[in-house]
Amino acid sequence: MTVAFLGLGAIGAPMARRVAARERELRVWNRTRARAEALARELDVHAADTPADAARGATVVITCLPTSNELQALLDGGLESALEPGAVVVDCTSGSPEATRAIAARLAARGVGFVDAPVSGGVSGAEQGTLTVMCGGDASTVDRVRPVLESFGRKIVHVGPVGAGMAVKAVNNILLAAHVWTLGEGLALLARSGVPASTALDVINASSGRSNSSQNLFPERVVGRAFPRTFRLALLDKDAATAAAALRDARVPSPLLQLTAELMRLAHVALGEEADHVEAVKVIEEWAGVRIG
Amino acid sequence: MTVAFLGLGAIGAPMARRVAARERELRVWNRTRARAEALARELDVHAADTPADAARGATVVITCLPTSNELQALLDGGLESALEPGAVVVDCTSGSPEATRAIAARLAARGVGFVDAPVSGGVSGAEQGTLTVMCGGDASTVDRVRPVLESFGRKIVHVGPVGAGMAVKAVNNILLAAHVWTLGEGLALLARSGVPASTALDVINASSGRSNSSQNLFPERVVGRAFPRTFRLALLDKDAATAAAALRDARVPSPLLQLTAELMRLAHVALGEEADHVEAVKVIEEWAGVRIG
Amino acid sequence: MTVAFLGLGAIGAPMARRVAARERELRVWNRTRARAEALARELDVHAADTPADAARGATVVITCLPTSNELQALLDGGLESALEPGAVVVDCTSGSPEATRAIAARLAARGVGFVDAPVSGGVSGAEQGTLTVMCGGDASTVDRVRPVLESFGRKIVHVGPVGAGMAVKAVNNILLAAHVWTLGEGLALLARSGVPASTALDVINASSGRSNSSQNLFPERVVGRAFPRTFRLALLDKDAATAAAALRDARVPSPLLQLTAELMRLAHVALGEEADHVEAVKVIEEWAGVRIG
Amino acid sequence: MTVAFLGLGAIGAPMARRVAARERELRVWNRTRARAEALARELDVHAADTPADAARGATVVITCLPTSNELQALLDGGLESALEPGAVVVDCTSGSPEATRAIAARLAARGVGFVDAPVSGGVSGAEQGTLTVMCGGDASTVDRVRPVLESFGRKIVHVGPVGAGMAVKAVNNILLAAHVWTLGEGLALLARSGVPASTALDVINASSGRSNSSQNLFPERVVGRAFPRTFRLALLDKDAATAAAALRDARVPSPLLQLTAELMRLAHVALGEEADHVEAVKVIEEWAGVRIG
Repeated sequence: MTVAFLGLGAIGAPMARRVAARERELRVWNRTRARAEALARELDVHAADTPADAARGATVVITCLPTSNELQALLDGGLESALEPGAVVVDCTSGSPEATRAIAARLAARGVGFVDAPVSGGVSGAEQGTLTVMCGGDASTVDRVRPVLESFGRKIVHVGPVGAGMAVKAVNNILLAAHVWTLGEGLALLARSGVPASTALDVINASSGRSNSSQNLFPERVVGRAFPRTFRLALLDKDAATAAAALRDARVPSPLLQLTAELMRLAHVALGEEADHVEAVKVIEEWAGVRIG
Repeated sequence: MTVAFLGLGAIGAPMARRVAARERELRVWNRTRARAEALARELDVHAADTPADAARGATVVITCLPTSNELQALLDGGLESALEPGAVVVDCTSGSPEATRAIAARLAARGVGFVDAPVSGGVSGAEQGTLTVMCGGDASTVDRVRPVLESFGRKIVHVGPVGAGMAVKAVNNILLAAHVWTLGEGLALLARSGVPASTALDVINASSGRSNSSQNLFPERVVGRAFPRTFRLALLDKDAATAAAALRDARVPSPLLQLTAELMRLAHVALGEEADHVEAVKVIEEWAGVRIG
Repeated sequence: MTVAFLGLGAIGAPMARRVAARERELRVWNRTRARAEALARELDVHAADTPADAARGATVVITCLPTSNELQALLDGGLESALEPGAVVVDCTSGSPEATRAIAARLAARGVGFVDAPVSGGVSGAEQGTLTVMCGGDASTVDRVRPVLESFGRKIVHVGPVGAGMAVKAVNNILLAAHVWTLGEGLALLARSGVPASTALDVINASSGRSNSSQNLFPERVVGRAFPRTFRLALLDKDAATAAAALRDARVPSPLLQLTAELMRLAHVALGEEADHVEAVKVIEEWAGVRIG
Repeated sequence: MTVAFLGLGAIGAPMARRVAARERELRVWNRTRARAEALARELDVHAADTPADAARGATVVITCLPTSNELQALLDGGLESALEPGAVVVDCTSGSPEATRAIAARLAARGVGFVDAPVSGGVSGAEQGTLTVMCGGDASTVDRVRPVLESFGRKIVHVGPVGAGMAVKAVNNILLAAHVWTLGEGLALLARSGVPASTALDVINASSGRSNSSQNLFPERVVGRAFPRTFRLALLDKDAATAAAALRDARVPSPLLQLTAELMRLAHVALGEEADHVEAVKVIEEWAGVRIG
């Protein structure tokens, strides 16, 4: 297959490296051109001038962008007309289910296939090819692009029709947000009650209240006060807002997740664009006047 | 040691069995006398007529009751005056930190020690002696009763001063409540989006949004529509209310956990006294007009 | 002016009557044709077969529809092409600010003016011509249609650009929703504390916690258990959802209003399409197991 | 009657002035002695050294303190033993219903009557004798003290048994809190939509979303940016917490008022002890990055 890879950010770049290791022909493009050129040199592939140049003649076009808005803007800006009938766009963006359905319909009208394929597993998962990939689309289209997905993903799951991949990703991430925040509130109480966070986590992780956050995020980051920037709070805010909007669209009463989305918005505003998602607990610490961990 | 065990409910009875296997002398008491007599016959130990009879002369008095109110009522009703100086009350109830501190102070005035020691791990953990025990109290008092605790617990953690054990248990359980409810809201959206719960859970459990609820409760209970009564919603409501009250007392702003407590109350009212805690998702299903799993 | 009036519901019909009393020429249209014909006979005006027929040659086209979606559908269905350059659409629907801006832009491209003009004051205000009208649009366009607005409105306020009228109406209505619900929660507590609702309202209405709901809705409706259907809960749910979505779009963290919108959704689902908005308190009564008033 | 007045704060002092104008004998006491002495000179009454000195021989003892805790502390510190059988304590504190019931029971055991009588109407209402007084207690006891209450209150309402006055006051105040906060969220959206707060309030105050806050607080304070300290946010936080706790005790599911209490806590922490209650909107302004009014 001839593959175009558009969007070489923190996750996109290592994903593109893994695609390069398997596919015969790869073209890469990035908004900041220097990143594309550096990666193209490293991989000995072509750095395209525009998304359209990258996509022209490609069988599969992978996109890995901040939001669905960026994909729409690329399509409007020339990408759509460069896509050839029979090609498939694989969108690895953590996007909006609703916008994604609109994009797929638009491409279908031109005979271009579409799979939404957001990923989970972080930078290290991308580097090691162990990402979880949540695919939405026709089963046959998903099957056609599966070999490419397998270059960076270990668990490739076809979850439903177009947009379903985005919905699963958004739900997963708002659950992450809810877990981080509720654990922060709980540990703030325990800190006030004389229980160190490390002790509390030790017990919770052997009990029914444990989560990925209590097991894999808080011990190092909150107890150790190391807040590596693996996933920006600004992006988790965006994902939580996507999930909250989808819940509203689907008319699912969801008081707890709607409030979770508001709190992510608050924390994002309070801590700025560069904060990591786990730093959201600092807002709770300030409100409670207590240090967790 | 001479041990008295008061409260032989779903968790208390198997815990008493394990104590019996290790300790020289055991007396048991239960509000419904028939349960005490049956267990006493099975274990060949003494079934006491009253809590005071059980406690007289005991080195350690273990209590495993619905709430702290029941322990206070037993103390008022004759138990307190039967306790001998030097004895230790080990309260395995999931109780209130505040009430627990009052009880411990009252006992201390009589020279009686106190350890709060709520447990996690359910009926099967009690049967197999693999409970997690969260101990609050003086280190020396905790050490004195540790051999008894080891008869039913595998992980015995001294988390802080009197009441801290209760606080950790309440926080663990309100986290469980938050996880069950947020996962229910999220899966209701996904059901609407054409994603089966089993598929969604498969992906979430390989991603950052996983929790003990998504891994160990929902696959069998929500997907399989088996709702075994392992832990009554009424009790989870009580624990969530305990945590919410402790958060307020400690002046920790906690919008998400306060709302969690309200939702447990709603679900408890809607589903009644006998529903299992995971059945809370049925309220979400009704609100959303969708069946999860 | 030649005026077309589209949408003759509970509010629209009395508004059309007042327009007829002032304007030289009026054409009316309604989805259920019988309502239009009856009103046309009563007023001795023309009942149009289609919205386009009503609008052709009209200077002002007033729309009073359930939501912005219905206006978009009418425009798509022939209304748009029947509008003449220089005409003005006055939309009295309680609509979405965002959809309204899109509609206005679409009409502007054809030289057709637009004013959003949702109203407050209920059926009796429409009958008596004492409605409050919240106008969004260019000042000059608002001025052009002011004489028509004055036929049914006593207080005509130009609140801002296109969409601003819809935003003010949505905010007003979500405040109404919040007032009804919070008052319901508070009175449920007081009922439990032995304070009759009539006594509680008497005091609150002389104190700082009073609102239009406590003064003008609850005394008759909740205390008197008369729940006249003056404004359907289904419509208040829709308005609250509109406000909640606008708050999200504007990135205003709004935990209390977002939760208000969720509760309206819950109450709407629980009580059905025909319930009046004040009946939402019945959900609280059921949750609390208490009768208010 | 011989009246003792304990607590001469912002509201207490003008209330005591009005009592002095009617009653034959008045003794005053205040924690900061200088305030008591100044008022005693002004009124030509006796400034007592201790609460007990003030209360000895008094027929009616009026208390106007920050919280129920202060009253309990005064009783413990000698006041209780100075009260004579047949005397009545009239507690004008905005206190806790639960604590109040305990205090009344304790006094009843000594033959001392009790009426809870929190007031609404602010400093100016106290000065002009136009307060609303919410009385809890036996009808006969309320009647006995009514003449004293009429010296500062215009509307004296017997709302129910002991504690009911406190409950009504707490509910009134948490409604005030909810109105201030929801109006702040709504106006933040409208500010973003190009609608000035003065215009928005003009419309809302002619519509169904109006409240005492929109009519009497926001026009001057938020639009005019004058934030006179008429009622401290710290006290409104305390009252909201009282109401939230009473709702929990009464097992009334109350998601909206519980969240209101959390937001008052947040705002109190963010703005400090001296902020006025209406300044809570500054927190919303900061979150939303917009200036209202």
